[in-house]
Formats: sequence, C-alpha cells, structure tokens
Amino acid sequence: MPDRLVVFTPSGKRGQFPDGTTLLDAARKLGADLDSVCGGRGICGRCQIEVATGQFPKHGIESRAEAITPWNRVEQRYADIRGALKSGRRLGCQAHLEGNVVIDIPAESQVHRQVVRKAADTRPITLDPVVTLHYVEVAEPDMHDPSSDFRRLADALRNEWGIADARAENAVLATLQKTLRAGQLKVTAAVRHGRDIVGLWPGLVDRIFGIAVDIGSTTVAAHLADLTTGETLASAGVMNPQIRFGEDLMSRVSYAMLNPGGDREMTAVIREAVAALVAEVAAEAKIDPDRIVEIVAVGNPIMHHLYLGLDPVELGGAPFALTVDQALDTSARDLGVVGASGAVVHTLPLVAGHVGADAAGMILAEAPYAGEDITLLVDVGTNAEIVLGNRHRLLACSSPTGPAFEGAQISSGQRAAPGAIERLRIDPLTLEPRYRIIGSDLWSDEPGFDAAAVVTGICGSGIIEAVAELFLAGIVTADGVIDGALALRSPRIVPEGRTFTYVIREGEPRIAITQADIRAIQLAKAALYAGIRLLMDHYPVDRVDRIVLAGAFGSHIDVKYAMVLGLIPDCPLAHVRSAGNAAGTGARIALLNLASRAEIAEVVRSIVKIETALEPRFQEHFVAAMAIPHKTDSFPNLAEAVTLPVRAATASSERRRRRGG
Amino acid sequence: MPDRLVVFTPSGKRGQFPDGTTLLDAARKLGADLDSVCGGRGICGRCQIEVATGQFPKHGIESRAEAITPWNRVEQRYADIRGALKSGRRLGCQAHLEGNVVIDIPAESQVHRQVVRKAADTRPITLDPVVTLHYVEVAEPDMHDPSSDFRRLADALRNEWGIADARAENAVLATLQKTLRAGQLKVTAAVRHGRDIVGLWPGLVDRIFGIAVDIGSTTVAAHLADLTTGETLASAGVMNPQIRFGEDLMSRVSYAMLNPGGDREMTAVIREAVAALVAEVAAEAKIDPDRIVEIVAVGNPIMHHLYLGLDPVELGGAPFALTVDQALDTSARDLGVVGASGAVVHTLPLVAGHVGADAAGMILAEAPYAGEDITLLVDVGTNAEIVLGNRHRLLACSSPTGPAFEGAQISSGQRAAPGAIERLRIDPLTLEPRYRIIGSDLWSDEPGFDAAAVVTGICGSGIIEAVAELFLAGIVTADGVIDGALALRSPRIVPEGRTFTYVIREGEPRIAITQADIRAIQLAKAALYAGIRLLMDHYPVDRVDRIVLAGAFGSHIDVKYAMVLGLIPDCPLAHVRSAGNAAGTGARIALLNLASRAEIAEVVRSIVKIETALEPRFQEHFVAAMAIPHKTDSFPNLAEAVTLPVRAATASSERRRRRGG
Repeated sequence: MPDRLVVFTPSGKRGQFPDGTTLLDAARKLGADLDSVCGGRGICGRCQIEVATGQFPKHGIESRAEAITPWNRVEQRYADIRGALKSGRRLGCQAHLEGNVVIDIPAESQVHRQVVRKAADTRPITLDPVVTLHYVEVAEPDMHDPSSDFRRLADALRNEWGIADARAENAVLATLQKTLRAGQLKVTAAVRHGRDIVGLWPGLVDRIFGIAVDIGSTTVAAHLADLTTGETLASAGVMNPQIRFGEDLMSRVSYAMLNPGGDREMTAVIREAVAALVAEVAAEAKIDPDRIVEIVAVGNPIMHHLYLGLDPVELGGAPFALTVDQALDTSARDLGVVGASGAVVHTLPLVAGHVGADAAGMILAEAPYAGEDITLLVDVGTNAEIVLGNRHRLLACSSPTGPAFEGAQISSGQRAAPGAIERLRIDPLTLEPRYRIIGSDLWSDEPGFDAAAVVTGICGSGIIEAVAELFLAGIVTADGVIDGALALRSPRIVPEGRTFTYVIREGEPRIAITQADIRAIQLAKAALYAGIRLLMDHYPVDRVDRIVLAGAFGSHIDVKYAMVLGLIPDCPLAHVRSAGNAAGTGARIALLNLASRAEIAEVVRSIVKIETALEPRFQEHFVAAMAIPHKTDSFPNLAEAVTLPVRAATASSERRRRRGG
Repeated sequence: MPDRLVVFTPSGKRGQFPDGTTLLDAARKLGADLDSVCGGRGICGRCQIEVATGQFPKHGIESRAEAITPWNRVEQRYADIRGALKSGRRLGCQAHLEGNVVIDIPAESQVHRQVVRKAADTRPITLDPVVTLHYVEVAEPDMHDPSSDFRRLADALRNEWGIADARAENAVLATLQKTLRAGQLKVTAAVRHGRDIVGLWPGLVDRIFGIAVDIGSTTVAAHLADLTTGETLASAGVMNPQIRFGEDLMSRVSYAMLNPGGDREMTAVIREAVAALVAEVAAEAKIDPDRIVEIVAVGNPIMHHLYLGLDPVELGGAPFALTVDQALDTSARDLGVVGASGAVVHTLPLVAGHVGADAAGMILAEAPYAGEDITLLVDVGTNAEIVLGNRHRLLACSSPTGPAFEGAQISSGQRAAPGAIERLRIDPLTLEPRYRIIGSDLWSDEPGFDAAAVVTGICGSGIIEAVAELFLAGIVTADGVIDGALALRSPRIVPEGRTFTYVIREGEPRIAITQADIRAIQLAKAALYAGIRLLMDHYPVDRVDRIVLAGAFGSHIDVKYAMVLGLIPDCPLAHVRSAGNAAGTGARIALLNLASRAEIAEVVRSIVKIETALEPRFQEHFVAAMAIPHKTDSFPNLAEAVTLPVRAATASSERRRRRGG
C-alpha cells in the first residue's frame, strides 16, 4: 500500500501513513490532539474533522475531499442517533486515507482546547483535566480461563487505551459487576492520572463534571464545570455554618481550644455545607451527581485544616505550624460528598501558617510568577494575605489587619449584606452625606430610597469610603482626627466624650462614624500597608507595576478610596484591579488543567515567606502608615484619582483663622 | 585515619572503614543485616553485637575486644534504663572501630531473622514485614522558614532513614501534631512499603503487631504476631455470624440474591466479627490495638467479597466471575477495625471463582511451587479446593463435594463441636462399635464415659471413620451397600424401609448411619476424588509424591480412613499430612514476609485453572469413584495402612453360603 501524506491543522503536525489508515489513528500517532472517548467506534462523535480542500503549496499537496474514504454506515448511524454533523464534518475514526490531504481539527474536537476566561488580562486555561473518559468493551467472562471482571476491564483499558496497571478502590469495585452487566460489558471509565478508575458507567458516557470550591471563613462558594468543555455550568454560595462557633478565624480556633471535640464539630458542619453546595450546583446544572469525578478545594489554613479533619489549634499561636502544606487527594466519600464512586477532593498546597490554599489559588489565577511585572496580590480578610513579585521571585506574608475591613468592631459596622451602606459620598461644602446600600440601586438622596430600602449598618467597603470621603471633605485630618471645629458648621459632627463623631444617619439604627472607628480603620490599613511595604523592602522594589485586590472585600471596594486611605501603595489606577474570587478561580484552573497543579506546587515551594511578627521593620512601617497619605509622600498617582484635601484642609484652617479660631 | 577491616558473621560481609566508624554504620553500608529502630541514638538496643575474639586466619585478622572503643555513657544509660546487656554484648551504634575485628550479629539483632514454624517439613519464614519502625527527631517549627509538621517529619525520615517522599493519609495526619508535641518532636513512625506512614507514636516505640485472619464460612480465626520478632502472641476463633443467613456458602449467596441489601447485612456482620476478634487477640496479648499496623486476611471467594463489601451474587452461578482477583490493600478503618491510624488490611489474591484467597494462603504455606515433589493440596469444605503440581506447573480446581463431609445432610450429622462422635471403630467379629466424642478423651467402652459426656451426633471425620470401618468390618460392600444379611448376626443392623441402617447408639439422640448417609458420603468423596483425578490427568501424572489435607476437616480426619474410602489417591501414608489451618498460615507468612506477597501473586497468576463443570472426564471419574476402592485397583499403599475386607467380605459370603443364603 502506498504511503499518504497527511497534515493536520492548526497544529501543523504531519506524517506519512499507509493507505487506509484512519484519520484518528494518524492524529494519535502524530500527537495531533484529536479527541475520542469511544476509541474509534464511531459512537462518541468527538473526533470530527474537516478536509481542507485546495492547493497547499507549502505542503506540496492538492487536498481534495476524495482523499478520504466516503461517508460510511457507521457515520450514518451516528448521524441518525445523535443528529446530523455540521456540513463538511466527518468522523475521524471512520474516514480512511486514500490520498494526500490537509485535515482541519476544529476547536471542539481538540482534547486540549482553550477555555475562555472572563477577564481579558488573564492567561487562558488549556483544558487538560486530571480525569479522562475511556469507553471500552470488556471481554466476556470465560470459565476456561477464569479472570475477574476487574482484570478484564483493566486489560481492555490497557489494550484499547494504553492505560497500564489500572487501579480502583473498593468503593469503585463494589459497583463494577452491576455496571458491567447493565452495560452488557460496554462501559465508560473515568480514569484519574491515567491510572485510577474513579467512575464507571454502563455504555457510552461523554460528559463528566468537576467542582471548584472556595471555603472562606464567611462564605463557601462552588462552581460546577463540564470537564469535557471547561464551561462553568452552575455556581452557588452559602454562609459558612461555622460562623455559629465564631465570626472570625481566631474565635473558631479558640472554640476548638476550649471545647473538647470542638474541631470535629466544626469539621462536621463545613463538610455538610460543602456536600450540600455540591448537590445544589449539580441540581442547578441538572446533572447526575454520579458524574462528578473531581473537586478542587481551596481555603485559608484554618478552613483547609478543619475541612480535612485536621485540628487547627496549632494555627492559633506561634509558631503557627501547619499539619501539612502539600496538595492532598482525599476520597470525596470520606468528606461526605456524593459524587462518582471514586471521586476525589484535591486541595491546593498551602504557603504558610497564615497564607493558605486560597492564596495558592489566587497566585495560580493571577500568575504573577509568569511575567516580568512586579505584581502585588492582596486578599483581605481578618488576616490579609499578601503576595509580591514576578517570575524571578515571589514573596508572601500575612498581616493582622483585624476584622475592621469586614465591618466588625466598628460601631455601626456589619457584614456585606442587604441593608449595609456600601457606597458613600460627602459634599465638601455642605458636609452632607449621600449613600447607597447593598440591595438597592438608589442613592439615599434619590426619590423612593426610604420606601425601597431598610438601612441596617455599614459594611467594610462603606467604611473605607466613609473615612476617605471624610478625609477628602476635610472633616478628618491626615492624622485621622475628626475636626471638632466643624461641629459649628454641620450638625452631623457631634461631640461624644472627648472626641467627635460624624453621623451619617439619625434614627433607628443610627449610623455614624466615631473617632474610634477611624482609629480601627487606621490600624487595619496601617497593618495592610506595613505588610506590603515589608515585602517591597525584602524584594527590594520601591514601586509595583500592578495591584490585584482579591476576595469579597477586594471586589467591593472602590480602588480609588483604597489608595486615598493608603491601603495599597501608589500605582497607576488603571493597573489596579479587583479580581473577585481569585482563590476560586485558581481552584477552577487546577480543576481544568492538570499541569497547573504541579506548577502551583512548585511556585508555592519557591515563595519566600516573610513572618511579619519577626520583622522589626514591620512595626516601623506600621507606625508610619497610620496617617492618611498626601500625594506628596510617594503617591503621585493619587492625583489621577482625586483632588486631595490640601485645599480643603487649607480652606478649613482659613475659615477657622477668619473666625478667629 | 587508617582504614580498619571489619568482618560480620554470620553473613561473612566484610569491608574496610575509617577508624572511628560505628559498627552500625559499617553493617548498614555492607548490608550486614543489623537492626536499629532509633537510628543510632543508643536507645532502642536493637543493634547489639559481640566481638568474636581470637585468630581468624581466613580473614587474616586477630580480633580482640580492644578493636572497638570502650563501653560508653550512652550504653551505660541504656543499661540503666532497659537492663544490663548480655555479657559480651555492645551497642553497635556506640562502638567505634579502632582495629581490625570480627563482629558477630546475634539472631535477635538481625532484621531478617528466621521465624521458626511448627511443622518440621515446612519452609522457614524470613522476617521482613511490610511495615518497619523508624525513630526520628523532627526539627522545631521555624517561623523564619515556615514548613508544615508533616514536611519536617518527612524530611527527618528522608535524612535519617533514606525514606524518600513519605506519605500519610488524612487519618494519620489528623494525629500528627498532637503526637509530635506529646513526644517533644521525638516520634517513631511505622512506615509501610518504605513510603506510607501508617502509625506514629510519641518517643521510641520498638514493637508493632500484625494480625493474620482466616475468614472461613463456619469459623473465623485470628493470630496476632509481633512484627519485630515474628512470634505469634495470641490466637482466637469465633463462629462466622453469617451462619444465621445460611449454613453453607451457596445459601448465603441465595440470601444476597433474594434479599435486597442482604449482601450488605452479611458484610456488616463479618466486619464486626473480625473487628471483635482483632480486639480480642490484642486484649489477650495485652497490647495496645493502636500498635496493630497490618492485617492479612484470607477467605474463600464469597467470604473475601463479602468482607470487602463486594456483592457475591455473580459467584452464585456460571461463569462464576469474581469482581477482583488481585491482592488488595484496604484501610482497616474502612473495615471497622481499630488499629494504628493508617493500618491496612491486605487480602491475598484469589485463584478463581471457587478457589479463593484461602487457597492462595494454603499454597503459600505449603509452597508446592518450590520443589520437585508432585504435591496434592486439598482443602475440603462445601467445595473442595484442590491444587496439584510442583515447581514446573500448578493446577487448581474446585469440586462440589457438598456439605456431607461437614456433617450436614447426614441423618445424625452435626458440625465438629463438643458431643460429636469424631472417632469410631467397629469390631469385625462382633460388629460392635466403640467411639470417642469431641470434648472427651475416653472411648465409649471405657469406664466413666457416660458420666463424663453427652453424645449429640456425629461430625464429618466421625462419618468418614464410620463408613470406612463399616466397610472394613464387611458390613458395607465395595459398592456402598449395607449388607442386610448381617441383620441376623447383629442387632445393630436394622431394616428401615427397603434399606438397612447401622445403629451406633440407641437412646436420645439415637445415632445411626443410614444407607442414604453412605450414599451422601460416596457422592462427596467421589466428587473430591474426581476433581483430584482430573488435575492428575491434566498434569499429567498417575501418582502424587505427597498429600496435604488442609482446613478443619483435613485436620480432624485420620488420613488412613480417607485413603480407605478413596477420598485421596494412593500415596505412602507417611507422605500424607494434615496441615491444619494452612490458609491462616499463609496469611501469617504474608504478614511477616513482604517478598512472599509478590511470590504468591505470581504463582496464583501462573496456576492453570480447571473448571470441573466444563470437563466431561470429571463425570466419568465421578462415576468410577463412587465405589470404595480395593488395594488391587491402584491403591498399593493401602496395604500399609489396613487389612482390607477382601477376607471379611469373603468370610461374610462364606457365612451366607453356609447358612444357605
């Protein structure tokens, strides 16, 4: 038989094959990335290809549709059952070479297709999940040569797919015989890492699913993805039920310390919550949970440990020793999750005692290690997790910002929930506020606001804006003091004890910013900024190229106000971005792309960890960062954002002077 | 520093080392099999050695006690705490080379010492368990270089013991921090396969334990072994609680078929029974169950599947497909066994649908594959598992002997339990019986028998003897017919319907052997013999060199009667042996010696399986084997054992003839 030249596009892979070779075989031998679940039986339809017709001088080919065998009965059967193929499409496993040809593999026929991500400036994800599907026809049991069903399944996987030494745990084995018989020995196996059978279904199955879970101290979020397309099909979130054991992380650790078995109680409730969330996204996407084969979970160290059943008490005090920092695979069943019989929960590695798998997810999502830009990643919670660097070097630390940014320990503070003030403006002339609450699109000075909404408090991003606007309006000085002299000018500024308070709203509840609130915000922002400065010193750099604010707080605040207050260092505002749930995005990447797991493991190991508590300079930076910055002191880009209250402060002094103050 | 020559005995390993090298280091470098748990810290005392003093011309050494450094403070501390060393003994980790020397490693200091087995003709077991002990001192957590406790433990195992990439499942990780702190970072790890941490204890631990379990359909037996010496410390047995679902295997499979969830019920009760048995042997040996690191379990295919939670219904009918035949490792915790946090249950491989892990255990215990002798292994239960061959070839089959050999479906039959007749003799002249029951040492014609014992029935071995003695006394013909003519001579032979019965004992309960009983025994023994013949045909051989009868039945019957009845082929009686619980012995070997696991896995795969149901010759052999053999028909060795009733039969015919019969 003569050899034929075949060229696959877009890869450009080319080779000579004997007349009669199927295009699927040719593509496989060349590594030309043509998908198949059924192994060339013409039933899965994954290997669709098109003949590129015409002259291809660079290949020396005239490629014609007749260079492959005509449409056959298997293809017709496929079309009859599953619907007609797109015009020009053929099944690569049914079309045989009869001449030189150029073959196009469309995106949906590629195994390693690219998954589109929302943000334009992020890297694309190449679909290459840890679990792959393999349809096989298992040999009949033979009394003359008795061998177990598992052995014959493993033999089929070896012979048809080159999977050597397939393994399965007992939970999978327990389903094996019924599944084989239900499928009349034709089954589809989900194989993890090319070796472990984690799911098995009768007949042809061509879709399996994975779930990315971000276990935050406050909320738990899950995203269900189709592992065969990379598409996210459903998302859901729920409050972390551990909140009843303590609002913040440290109070939960205290609960575990003070109550024997307290850690196990918290483990039980978070496992239940994750399991319920998995069931919820499966129901929302209308898929059988039995098809869920892989879950990737991230969380801060304490959430990570509690979810896996590891007592977090050592994380409650120095030296903050993690039990384990490596990525782990745990049976989903052991964690109470209903999925495929061998489904696995993969947890990302942890960076350090305060910098968890959520940080690893954030780093994977934003990939500062992939470029030259000095990137600052900040995820603010009770502790801020801070990462700084680029492809040459990455540093990380956590800084004890406390709960103020989350609205806790603030007189009118509350969590970000309907009714909480999240946006606030103060007129620099009248000193009157206007605001907007979560759950309403109206500003407080717009008609119908009072009818439409109940104001309940002020959340983290609202407090940031309030303090920044107080500063911009000249009510608060650069030192963070509410200027009591203005009480004469506005009834909103009232004395309370020896300090003054700015009243946003009278009534029930009264919402106000006290001097103590401003001090709390100053402490929090000084801690955050000091942590960032510490990393910049260690790198060393004196400016950053881009800033990414991650997490719920990061996605709610207006970055302009973050810079006004000096939460973050100077940077062109266009290069400051809220990344939303970057930790969850990282989990999703690890779910869809196997190589990313090794990548993040290596990056995490290489990160230089800075322990703020051990650094004398942290204290210096902290003290220096208490004040609210002026553009003169190293924030040139602030001018781009706002007019700083040099004028306002001056005007105020002027007024006082004129009044004889 | 000058090099010194050291020669270790008994291995004869020798090498040159710099002055000052410890004997432990020298032994390790030479692979001279010197034990150590503490890694050379002088606290475990495992590396004790002796200087062999004198002239050693073949080594060119004059070896003197002064060739090693003197007794030091570490050794004195060890002796103060743990007791004086035997005279002449030193700790190999504390004694340093200062001259040429011959060092003897006593048996108890060898890692791979030989374990003594009871039977003289069995292979010794070399102690080399899958789990080994490693004492380490883990580095303090360091906030400047944060790493998890697990990583530092793994680093210590790598640095001190060369264990690369230690792993631990979550249940082990969950105990890690408390254990490390309880031991002030000094811990002993039990490491399986040189990689998986399956147990972790504070301080130095120098004993761990394993358990061999044989799950029979009727009884479950467990033996607890010290994995550091190989010694069996405790044994216990219990009835298989599944008996309430059916006496024999097939009735249990039927239960699973007829009752949804029936397999899970049976799984639950057998797991409970094994867990209780493990707790019992641990209590008997007065050891902490937390030190149990490995369990090896064997059982027939149905017991094996039920214990692992695999539905056995496919084993209830052709083609008798096993779910899985490979050896498996299952978390002991998943099977409800309380042991070390990562303890594993290892099940031996299965041979075929009717020939289970118990047969694999028997094969491992008797090792027919290791020699030239054509060996016949028989384990009789409801199915007989039969193995035949030698190191060139092994064949196996099972034969449906039915429950007669176990006393079931026999008119006066019962299980082997106190009160059951197990030995029986018939006087060929008076035709009177005498017998002995389980639980009594007296024969029925000895004084005090009636006062001491309550006769309840006749067990399998008793029935074999009864039928054989009836034949030898001339009461039963070679065709298996009770000779009614003898009713005239003895009141024990009575007509019942159209056949005759031999009454062993009148009263309550009356115990007798009916014609139907003899038919049942004939069917059972013909099935067994036909299976054996079939394997002999396939091999092909026409005689066997040795016969091993395994299992409860095999250990109770007198092999002489087995040969009289023709259960087994002709063989010199001295080469026929009862092996007792050979399956359990095989489990114990796999527990103590890692290499034996690979060995039996390879042997099991190489066995030629013969399916009796598919072999027309089985039926022929079966029919031919119904009769009771005479020495003339290929049982020459019978003459050695008994005087066959040719004479008796002739005498009886003579009597009949004289009486005019």
